[in-house]
Amino acid sequence: MNEFMQAAIEEAEHAVATARGGPFGAVVVHEGHIVGRGHNTVVDTRDPTAHAEVNAIREASRVLDRFDLSDCELYTTCEPCPMCYAAAYWARIPRIYRGATKEDAAGIGFDDKAMYDDLARPTEDREIQLVELDREACLEPFRFWESKPDRVPY
Amino acid sequence: MNEFMQAAIEEAEHAVATARGGPFGAVVVHEGHIVGRGHNTVVDTRDPTAHAEVNAIREASRVLDRFDLSDCELYTTCEPCPMCYAAAYWARIPRIYRGATKEDAAGIGFDDKAMYDDLARPTEDREIQLVELDREACLEPFRFWESKPDRVPY
Repeated sequence: MNEFMQAAIEEAEHAVATARGGPFGAVVVHEGHIVGRGHNTVVDTRDPTAHAEVNAIREASRVLDRFDLSDCELYTTCEPCPMCYAAAYWARIPRIYRGATKEDAAGIGFDDKAMYDDLARPTEDREIQLVELDREACLEPFRFWESKPDRVPY
Repeated sequence: MNEFMQAAIEEAEHAVATARGGPFGAVVVHEGHIVGRGHNTVVDTRDPTAHAEVNAIREASRVLDRFDLSDCELYTTCEPCPMCYAAAYWARIPRIYRGATKEDAAGIGFDDKAMYDDLARPTEDREIQLVELDREACLEPFRFWESKPDRVPY
């Protein structure tokens, strides 16, 4: 049993035992040490983004004081949903160890596969209706950004 | 000019003016009122998940004290990245008004399209390496969840 996955499982068990959220846990590891722990807290905090991986990534970023976690790895008890995968992508995490599959998650009512399928569709065929509005005005902040010599790319 | 998109643009301008993050803003609207505002704070907070839409959704969830925002709409100055789209999906937001396109964003260095393409690939071909580890042990929290009669689905 991998010690980091064991820690992630303990997070998942804690989420269920305390009724904070779904049965998911994750840890972020940097140079052999856990720098972020998270379990699902969607129910407790009423925050739909409070998935285990997002919570663990947020904590790791606070601890390391940087948004670039390219020298870290993520251990998660279940294959990340698209939100959590994308969060790891933005954090530049190169490798994710996962326990259960998204099919396992679907078996207990968490259908991430539907969301993956939806994201792979063209914008106009997605579940959430996307409507264009005031595009030209929204380009103004882009120009403002480009005019700032001290902007920090990420 | 739509008043809610105007508010989202003001958020985006604020992010740039204060150097908190990228030129993106968003608001969540419930029954004709803004209940969540957000701008990108990735640089300032060193949180890679602190995109405008995620910040706005988190605030709306706090204000309404629930993770289900199915009676809300999201206004965002730019087409959401997969993380933000998935956050809106989990929040059950049915409609998103967006200003700039992901092609506009790519033009100033924010290449969300690459992330959309990556997510559409089979797991083994993705940019982040996904490695299976201790799957059987990770199913234990799932069984624990199913054994709890008071579990809250979301």
